[in-house]
Amino acid sequence: MTVKTESIKLSTRGNTDIIDITDALSLLVSESGINNGIVTVFSPSATSAITTIEYETGCVSDFKRLFDEIVPQNRDYSHNLKWGDGNGHSHVRAALLKASFSVPFVERRLTLGTWQHIIFLDFDNRPRQRELVVQIMGE
Amino acid sequence: MTVKTESIKLSTRGNTDIIDITDALSLLVSESGINNGIVTVFSPSATSAITTIEYETGCVSDFKRLFDEIVPQNRDYSHNLKWGDGNGHSHVRAALLKASFSVPFVERRLTLGTWQHIIFLDFDNRPRQRELVVQIMGE
Amino acid sequence: MTVKTESIKLSTRGNTDIIDITDALSLLVSESGINNGIVTVFSPSATSAITTIEYETGCVSDFKRLFDEIVPQNRDYSHNLKWGDGNGHSHVRAALLKASFSVPFVERRLTLGTWQHIIFLDFDNRPRQRELVVQIMGE
Repeated sequence: MTVKTESIKLSTRGNTDIIDITDALSLLVSESGINNGIVTVFSPSATSAITTIEYETGCVSDFKRLFDEIVPQNRDYSHNLKWGDGNGHSHVRAALLKASFSVPFVERRLTLGTWQHIIFLDFDNRPRQRELVVQIMGE
Repeated sequence: MTVKTESIKLSTRGNTDIIDITDALSLLVSESGINNGIVTVFSPSATSAITTIEYETGCVSDFKRLFDEIVPQNRDYSHNLKWGDGNGHSHVRAALLKASFSVPFVERRLTLGTWQHIIFLDFDNRPRQRELVVQIMGE
Repeated sequence: MTVKTESIKLSTRGNTDIIDITDALSLLVSESGINNGIVTVFSPSATSAITTIEYETGCVSDFKRLFDEIVPQNRDYSHNLKWGDGNGHSHVRAALLKASFSVPFVERRLTLGTWQHIIFLDFDNRPRQRELVVQIMGE
């Protein structure tokens, strides 16, 4: 049984930029030397999140619209009134969708469905440099 | 320390069918030969998700209503305009609720609360055959 | 490779009380004797959830507002009509946000971002005594 900690570095455009991290993650798992287990992808950030989706432009824009509707950018936020950085909506979106995601892998391959891709969402209101934590655990 | 990969097969009616998988999961954990650890239930699909709820008809219908309200089926979706399969809402609901869920177990028993059941939600717009990945890890 | 099961006890005020559990969790991880791995925090309850946020009063009140808007307390719930306990909204909020959260740790430290805190949300409609399950796994 082994634990390996890797990372994925990303340059994002912010503003609910949605980035497919499936290939980067698959590569880390396949090269980890661990055959079976789970990989936990974690974003050490308060304005981003991780989930899965069918990564085609339709689904991606439909998913963005959800956040624009239930957590709109252009309204009052207590966070903005206090700190003036204008990313109150980013914090609420990230807390709702969560910064952590775990996927099983078997024989060094993620157990994803055919159309299922792992995505990183940067909800911040400006471009950011991000570094995700990838913890691979198994035997 | 050991990893075991099991599965749960389900026939669903789609359309936010909500299925209690607690008993199936408890059985897999109790028979795994692993005493303490975490079990990760993962749906290899882009139109389904996993969470917990008090599994009584009231809570289940209240939870369905939430998705009908914040991600309604009958409106335009970019996904539907491109692919014509009518399940744009299914993708958004699944990406929001997420396809992965991890539960600790102690002495071969899930650490669930009294009223807490693990549920699989099939958001697709038609009946589906599903096979969930159940990764049990511990010692 | 080792598994350790710990717990965090909390007295909450209910009504979407949001409690910072970062310090309690960091202490359990640092004293676990396990250097690298993941910690899974699980709430054995059907009316509470766990996520991360920048823990300042602005973000916290903005996040509460989201739940008041998309899952309001004062409306009909099938759960309430059946059981009369008035916490139908609590169940829906908890099922949406989920009772489980996993964080990697490296050299006995959680890999959290600078402003990122782990929070427990008690959505029930009355004060509660809670005991979270903390499963630490690694080597």
